[in-house]
Amino acid sequence: MTGASARDLPSRIRQRVLAALPEGHGHPELQRFVELQRIYPERAGKTLRGQVVVLSTRAHDGDEDAAFTAAAGVELFQNWVLVHDDIEDDSEERRGQPALHRLVGTPVAINVGDALHVAMWRLLMSLPPGSRGGLDREAVLQEFLWMIERTAEGQHLDLSWIASGRFDVTEDDYLTMVTLKTAYYTVVCPLRLGAACAGVPPSEGFEVAGTDLGVAFQIRDDVLNLTPGVAYGKEFAGDLYEGKRTLILAHLLAHASRSERDEVVDVLAVPREAKRPEGIRHVLEAIERHGSLAYAQSVAEQRARRGLENLSEALGRLPGQQAARDLETLLRSLALRST
Amino acid sequence: MTGASARDLPSRIRQRVLAALPEGHGHPELQRFVELQRIYPERAGKTLRGQVVVLSTRAHDGDEDAAFTAAAGVELFQNWVLVHDDIEDDSEERRGQPALHRLVGTPVAINVGDALHVAMWRLLMSLPPGSRGGLDREAVLQEFLWMIERTAEGQHLDLSWIASGRFDVTEDDYLTMVTLKTAYYTVVCPLRLGAACAGVPPSEGFEVAGTDLGVAFQIRDDVLNLTPGVAYGKEFAGDLYEGKRTLILAHLLAHASRSERDEVVDVLAVPREAKRPEGIRHVLEAIERHGSLAYAQSVAEQRARRGLENLSEALGRLPGQQAARDLETLLRSLALRST
Repeated sequence: MTGASARDLPSRIRQRVLAALPEGHGHPELQRFVELQRIYPERAGKTLRGQVVVLSTRAHDGDEDAAFTAAAGVELFQNWVLVHDDIEDDSEERRGQPALHRLVGTPVAINVGDALHVAMWRLLMSLPPGSRGGLDREAVLQEFLWMIERTAEGQHLDLSWIASGRFDVTEDDYLTMVTLKTAYYTVVCPLRLGAACAGVPPSEGFEVAGTDLGVAFQIRDDVLNLTPGVAYGKEFAGDLYEGKRTLILAHLLAHASRSERDEVVDVLAVPREAKRPEGIRHVLEAIERHGSLAYAQSVAEQRARRGLENLSEALGRLPGQQAARDLETLLRSLALRST
Repeated sequence: MTGASARDLPSRIRQRVLAALPEGHGHPELQRFVELQRIYPERAGKTLRGQVVVLSTRAHDGDEDAAFTAAAGVELFQNWVLVHDDIEDDSEERRGQPALHRLVGTPVAINVGDALHVAMWRLLMSLPPGSRGGLDREAVLQEFLWMIERTAEGQHLDLSWIASGRFDVTEDDYLTMVTLKTAYYTVVCPLRLGAACAGVPPSEGFEVAGTDLGVAFQIRDDVLNLTPGVAYGKEFAGDLYEGKRTLILAHLLAHASRSERDEVVDVLAVPREAKRPEGIRHVLEAIERHGSLAYAQSVAEQRARRGLENLSEALGRLPGQQAARDLETLLRSLALRST
């Protein structure tokens, strides 16, 4: 329960994730299927969300073993979502290596994502029924349902704006989308899962604080994507190639002249394979000209600050204060991430 | 519990499926997301699998309300699998209308499938924890895990053979694939769910009998797809356009001359959009010449007969004999389906 034991969390969570996946199969083609399911989980992610679950459980003085199961569940959730997300966005890279569908094709990759989804539920259902050491298994399962539903809603907004060619996305639209798509599964639900692993109702403050912190995290992600030379596992300016509606883009389009706006939309509205590097460069120059990256950065910082204040208040009443401080440190670095 | 009450099962199951889906949303784009989730469930399917669950529960004298929940869960399972399946196979039609991804594009459709997947789990988790009126909720949940895992394995075999251009698929390979891909979720698991809804262990005979019946059902599906003039909701010869490895194709390739074989492979190995109707006609003529459709039909009938014999034996010991007879009637028509 000390700061020292927080340092080995990533490796312990990763171990739990890999242990939850099938190991081998006598049929050679099904053995290959097992291996495909392990590709994303074996590319070391940061396990930030899993760490939030474990530290929140400790802050609530909850069931340590259940915490690692729920943490691995959140990480497995992220892995299957990323497999599908990378297809949906036709991303090139994930964690510094080719996206799964670029290795095995879209049909096989969709099915691998579904297999990881069910592996997540199998793991969660290994939690002992009823309550043990405070664990409320039903609350854990309900939190996962909620988390997946919200994330899918956010994902729908993101994808349907691209599919329908909508470029009139406002800052508010963006904030609604990333709250659903990122903030719940990155911060709000992991915080609440800690309470469920302790069998207590979650603080109402987690939703407000977690939303601010998760939104800050996503805006930082968007900013990093357009910052050259940042090694964070995705291709530079991939968001522009994928036509993502970001706060940066919303700011740019709200402040650009009509002719600049038309030029930016012309570049972004075409499918990925029709995009040219010089077009992307023009968009990056317009972003620079209007200070849209700096604006997004300032919103992220403001959200992070407010989120951390509210988080501190919500955590102040919990029994595990050392873990609560570790959790604040982790969420500060998450919301103000530099990689 | 009479034959009469078996007649309204399809509408009652459909009602349960639709009631399990979100109805509306204040946000216009999320309202659209809700509507997209309802498209496949609202296209009236036959609810065969759901009916097997309810009749099996009645034969086991189990919890009637839990039976409808589990039945709707199996139907929701099929709906999300079909959404993903249609993308994976790039199918044109589903239940006589355009496949979802042809209406909204692949990215949005993948995400709709994921939303239906989580709706299935939300419905199943509405089952009362522990046991009630004999219901064993954990057994229901475990059966769904098993069912999804096996189906994904079968799907992987199907997709990876197409992706890797394998044409040396034998009859045994085919049978392994369809046992996993079709027989578990169509017959074996629905039969066993009836036992779980009654809180008793399932008969071991269900696996053997259900595999035979499910395999017969899938072979009949393959045969119907290549039989002109059958109105069963999918495009005629779609399996050839999609390059499906079927028992018919395995028989043809095992009996064709080298030059015929080369011609068939030439036609089928290219992507769907490069296939020409005259090429498909040549393949259909070769199938006719070698009696491959008749051969597949004979295997289906043999499997159906053996499956029905074993089923009858397994059902003979159960308390609800009227329901057991309804179940046999249903599974006979399923295994020997003509639409």
